[in-house]
Amino acid sequence: MSYNSFGHLFRVTTWGESHGPAIGCVVDGCPPRLPLTEADIQPFLDRRRPGQSAFTTQRREPDAVRILSGVFEGQTTGTPISLVIENTDQRSRDYGDIAQTYRPGHADLTYDLKYGIRDYRGGGRSSARETACRVAAGAVARKILGEGIVIRGALVQLGPHKIDRAQWDWDEVERNPFFCPDAKSVPMWEDYLAGIRKDGLSIGAVIELVAENVPAGLGAPIYGKLDSDLAAALMSINAVKGVEIGDGFASAELTGVQNADPLFMRDGHVAFGANHAGGILGGISSGQPVVARFAVKPTSSMLTPVPSITSAGEEKDVITKGRHDPCVGIRAVPVGEAMMACVLADHLLRHRGQVG
Amino acid sequence: MSYNSFGHLFRVTTWGESHGPAIGCVVDGCPPRLPLTEADIQPFLDRRRPGQSAFTTQRREPDAVRILSGVFEGQTTGTPISLVIENTDQRSRDYGDIAQTYRPGHADLTYDLKYGIRDYRGGGRSSARETACRVAAGAVARKILGEGIVIRGALVQLGPHKIDRAQWDWDEVERNPFFCPDAKSVPMWEDYLAGIRKDGLSIGAVIELVAENVPAGLGAPIYGKLDSDLAAALMSINAVKGVEIGDGFASAELTGVQNADPLFMRDGHVAFGANHAGGILGGISSGQPVVARFAVKPTSSMLTPVPSITSAGEEKDVITKGRHDPCVGIRAVPVGEAMMACVLADHLLRHRGQVG
Amino acid sequence: MSYNSFGHLFRVTTWGESHGPAIGCVVDGCPPRLPLTEADIQPFLDRRRPGQSAFTTQRREPDAVRILSGVFEGQTTGTPISLVIENTDQRSRDYGDIAQTYRPGHADLTYDLKYGIRDYRGGGRSSARETACRVAAGAVARKILGEGIVIRGALVQLGPHKIDRAQWDWDEVERNPFFCPDAKSVPMWEDYLAGIRKDGLSIGAVIELVAENVPAGLGAPIYGKLDSDLAAALMSINAVKGVEIGDGFASAELTGVQNADPLFMRDGHVAFGANHAGGILGGISSGQPVVARFAVKPTSSMLTPVPSITSAGEEKDVITKGRHDPCVGIRAVPVGEAMMACVLADHLLRHRGQVG
Amino acid sequence: MSYNSFGHLFRVTTWGESHGPAIGCVVDGCPPRLPLTEADIQPFLDRRRPGQSAFTTQRREPDAVRILSGVFEGQTTGTPISLVIENTDQRSRDYGDIAQTYRPGHADLTYDLKYGIRDYRGGGRSSARETACRVAAGAVARKILGEGIVIRGALVQLGPHKIDRAQWDWDEVERNPFFCPDAKSVPMWEDYLAGIRKDGLSIGAVIELVAENVPAGLGAPIYGKLDSDLAAALMSINAVKGVEIGDGFASAELTGVQNADPLFMRDGHVAFGANHAGGILGGISSGQPVVARFAVKPTSSMLTPVPSITSAGEEKDVITKGRHDPCVGIRAVPVGEAMMACVLADHLLRHRGQVG
Repeated sequence: MSYNSFGHLFRVTTWGESHGPAIGCVVDGCPPRLPLTEADIQPFLDRRRPGQSAFTTQRREPDAVRILSGVFEGQTTGTPISLVIENTDQRSRDYGDIAQTYRPGHADLTYDLKYGIRDYRGGGRSSARETACRVAAGAVARKILGEGIVIRGALVQLGPHKIDRAQWDWDEVERNPFFCPDAKSVPMWEDYLAGIRKDGLSIGAVIELVAENVPAGLGAPIYGKLDSDLAAALMSINAVKGVEIGDGFASAELTGVQNADPLFMRDGHVAFGANHAGGILGGISSGQPVVARFAVKPTSSMLTPVPSITSAGEEKDVITKGRHDPCVGIRAVPVGEAMMACVLADHLLRHRGQVG
Repeated sequence: MSYNSFGHLFRVTTWGESHGPAIGCVVDGCPPRLPLTEADIQPFLDRRRPGQSAFTTQRREPDAVRILSGVFEGQTTGTPISLVIENTDQRSRDYGDIAQTYRPGHADLTYDLKYGIRDYRGGGRSSARETACRVAAGAVARKILGEGIVIRGALVQLGPHKIDRAQWDWDEVERNPFFCPDAKSVPMWEDYLAGIRKDGLSIGAVIELVAENVPAGLGAPIYGKLDSDLAAALMSINAVKGVEIGDGFASAELTGVQNADPLFMRDGHVAFGANHAGGILGGISSGQPVVARFAVKPTSSMLTPVPSITSAGEEKDVITKGRHDPCVGIRAVPVGEAMMACVLADHLLRHRGQVG
Repeated sequence: MSYNSFGHLFRVTTWGESHGPAIGCVVDGCPPRLPLTEADIQPFLDRRRPGQSAFTTQRREPDAVRILSGVFEGQTTGTPISLVIENTDQRSRDYGDIAQTYRPGHADLTYDLKYGIRDYRGGGRSSARETACRVAAGAVARKILGEGIVIRGALVQLGPHKIDRAQWDWDEVERNPFFCPDAKSVPMWEDYLAGIRKDGLSIGAVIELVAENVPAGLGAPIYGKLDSDLAAALMSINAVKGVEIGDGFASAELTGVQNADPLFMRDGHVAFGANHAGGILGGISSGQPVVARFAVKPTSSMLTPVPSITSAGEEKDVITKGRHDPCVGIRAVPVGEAMMACVLADHLLRHRGQVG
Repeated sequence: MSYNSFGHLFRVTTWGESHGPAIGCVVDGCPPRLPLTEADIQPFLDRRRPGQSAFTTQRREPDAVRILSGVFEGQTTGTPISLVIENTDQRSRDYGDIAQTYRPGHADLTYDLKYGIRDYRGGGRSSARETACRVAAGAVARKILGEGIVIRGALVQLGPHKIDRAQWDWDEVERNPFFCPDAKSVPMWEDYLAGIRKDGLSIGAVIELVAENVPAGLGAPIYGKLDSDLAAALMSINAVKGVEIGDGFASAELTGVQNADPLFMRDGHVAFGANHAGGILGGISSGQPVVARFAVKPTSSMLTPVPSITSAGEEKDVITKGRHDPCVGIRAVPVGEAMMACVLADHLLRHRGQVG
């Protein structure tokens, strides 16, 4: 029941603070004899890495992952895989204000209320830097899932601006700095986010994840439902405030007839007339694409002064300087993909364990 | 990692099928010397019980809970509490169609795809009847939390109709069959739902949960975050398709300044200028009210024929007769409250274990 | 991490007190489509049941098990299996002394020290009656293991009297009230135990368990080793004070050469020249018979007065009257078998999950 | 349910192979604000380190531990503590024989049978080197337990030679290379083990652990019993084949009267007339010293040829050359202490969580 572990048969334990010597994770339960090298993991880390466009934080680190255990001659051995990423960009600096003054909307206050101590440097454990470990673990999870199961994410809403879903093009996602699947939205988003950044503001976003070719039968009622585990996984990502499966909140407005996914037979297989359910029925995958969305709040770091207090209990306005993303939701795309990969890999193993 | 268990230090394991002899749960990890009798649990079950208005299923069962263990002379002993509810309304009947034909949107298909067998009687394990066990466990959880922590839920949206939040009155929630906090919405909802029912339709809903006086410090980063566990808990309820904390999906449209909850000092204590965060920062409770919402899809049972298939792989339209709720979201209110109580009780014990 | 649960993928949660209305367990994670009825479980309970010879407690209860969930039309469904055994022999009686005075060697004192409350009736939760649930769960576990894997136990030492291992005959185990595999020891043990009983004494015992045809590969290093889980399982049985695998403590006196199990090839398969290791190497089954032993202390209930104290902190000698086994080790044989079955079933599923 | 994790609220995950770049562990759930630096951990590692006498393997590594996370300004923060020890003594060498030929009594065979692959270099994951991580974690556990709880271990039997318990002197343990508490046994053991080593043999041992000032109430029935968790913890150590609590296997030969620990009152507190139970009753600590013993088999590495097979299925005698301990039991003393510290720390937190 480790607080810093995720999953059951495929189990990931992450550790590390933003400005400590390194961050890392231990991936336990990985099946043996899967080909795995750093080169399988690095591309996913590179995709999440900051400093790649004007729209993400300018912290520049190679985020080079090292495999310290669990792999022998290029193959997993079934023993724990230790992955480590050094923190190279720990410039000595003056943390003065952040050490004593809480940033509203950040975890500074609650860490102190809970633990009575916090590593304030760069957000410590609550820094988004931890998500690099999720991405690394997700790359291992994808090895278990195999190439047949395709997991992709896209930014479908930037602040108030939603994409035109009719324009959805997965190839476009890799061509712009927003992971946006709608080419027409890209220039508008560029303008909009440039304005946000210039004004020292930040903005929220919504990410959509789609996993295709997920076999039917994954997920285990009642408390090991696939959607329940996905919700936990996505809600655990920094700054996430909402999770939906399939039609999500929109389904509250529908009648049962409107929300129905009719069943047919196609070439001897089950086929569906729609996917309002997002590929999950009764907590179990149906064979349809698994679809989830999550909302990321605007980062609380900004240049506008906000009333706050110090750890000594004095009122004091704060401005949060430093290198920050105007929209942390952008870099949440590869993180969300990774979490979905981890959940699916875990359930694949769990299903195999119980049902064979 | 039991599939049918929930929680860690406060751990609930539920069992039972809709039309088996009984359903029940085992509550493990409860602190000793808490006063507990059936009379502490029954009122919560009565609140969830169907057949109380025209707007819920007409299945009529007393849902009388029995405590079989873990309580001695009216006090918990620290040993597992076994709670059992007999299924008294198992009329012998003809399940013919439901046995062979899948109901779209139900778990019939996926249970068969996963397990190769299912107890089709009344939905078997996937029946909403299982939620009675959650409500019973929630009543025990409330004993741990004490009377200071107040957990309440309300229906804030019925189909397309949202309440007027300015009219929110918690007392009103107990006065109408919808758990609606806005007296003005009640007659309109009555009309609307009567129409839905008459047309043989069903409709979705949104429930809001508020826990007041939750101490700061509950929840444990990174994968034991309070919001992550709440998301899992609420998403595991039958028919739930979305979960939000605080401003939820709306926060995606906000700037950091708009979304900020400023900090002040009031009488020597931390005070907040707003609660966009829903009482949780970095996965840890801040001392503000914990606010969550979840969306319930319309029940898939309805009188309109929908294309479907049989377990033998033949296409066949289905109509789902029987006693069903036109809006299952209504009865999800006490279930949601119970899940929040279980999550908070678990985290209270976990926090006490680690931090003392 | 439930205190009253055992196992991971095959997970058993037990509940109930000696003199409450019932005891029971929930078996979660069982694979679907295994044939299972009460008739598969009852014979194992009958074997453990007291009152069958002069050498076990005279409490007489049918110990009839009921399946309340998880089985449909004679097959497991993959959902939790709830098993209940009513306590029919709860004679109203005067517990006066036991309520206030601690019995040395019993859990009375420590339950009170831990919980500040205890159900003193018949030992409450710490009664050996709980082991009936283990036996019931073990019967389900055997269904998973299949008939090929044979798990048997025998009493190999009664007090100071060890069997002659050269006389080992598994058939003999079922022919005497001691589960003794050595026919020549039986009459001697009868005389010895009759004397113990007449003198109001009790005596310890050692049980040996052998599981044959266990496939190689079960058990997962480092902390999920098969022997580690067996040790936990056996040590959790009431009154057990020691556990050994293979040669156990005797191996401390051996040299590496004496302790070696040489390897050969026989008909294309791995064969072993000895089984000092008890079928487990590095925590993983080798394909050899898995051999474990455990020591049961003499029951602390006896007719000789022993100095003790009351819950009010006064010194007072106690005599423990009532229906007790002169050697609780005898009835521990089917309990030990059941625990080994549960551990092996769990590891079979876990291995299948990770390795396929 | 991670295979490479141990404990629940105090949870240790270890990783690493003998000849990989490093080994390490993640300690999760540690309470905040405990003073901790490498200097608190290193002495325990030094005590376990090989190469300190003629009687342990000549592998020479500094085993210098680094704290990579979870500690800020010399105090624990409540976040995961990542500990890493580099493998500095990975001489490039010819592993030829060990790669293809199984060493009887080693995990070589079973790792291959289970995983179909193994890191054969120095025993890979099954190397005793992993126990360094246990020792490091144990040092953290001791911080939680505080200085009041004293955990010590001693070698009480070397091969056939048992100590004279009347001579027990804890100070002596630190004065000889055997952790032997009986000064008179030391010269005899030196002669004996020198002979074993000269003959290219190895020998087993028995270690006794004693934890003093353990508060009453630790351990949770039924499957979280303190003795059950100790048994699992000690049996998981490499080469351990038996575990005892208190009188252990000897209690099988006793009558209830002989085995009784009478209760008295002394200065208003519970006092005991003996400690046959080893400080645990019904799975819960009684306040008496917790006493456990475990048996370590002779290492299977030796210079005498033993019949074996190759991974290709051919018969072939093996001699195991290299740097090996003639008695691995000696270095198991600090490992056993560490495991007991981890179990007690975990149960301290668990007890505090449930009971307060």
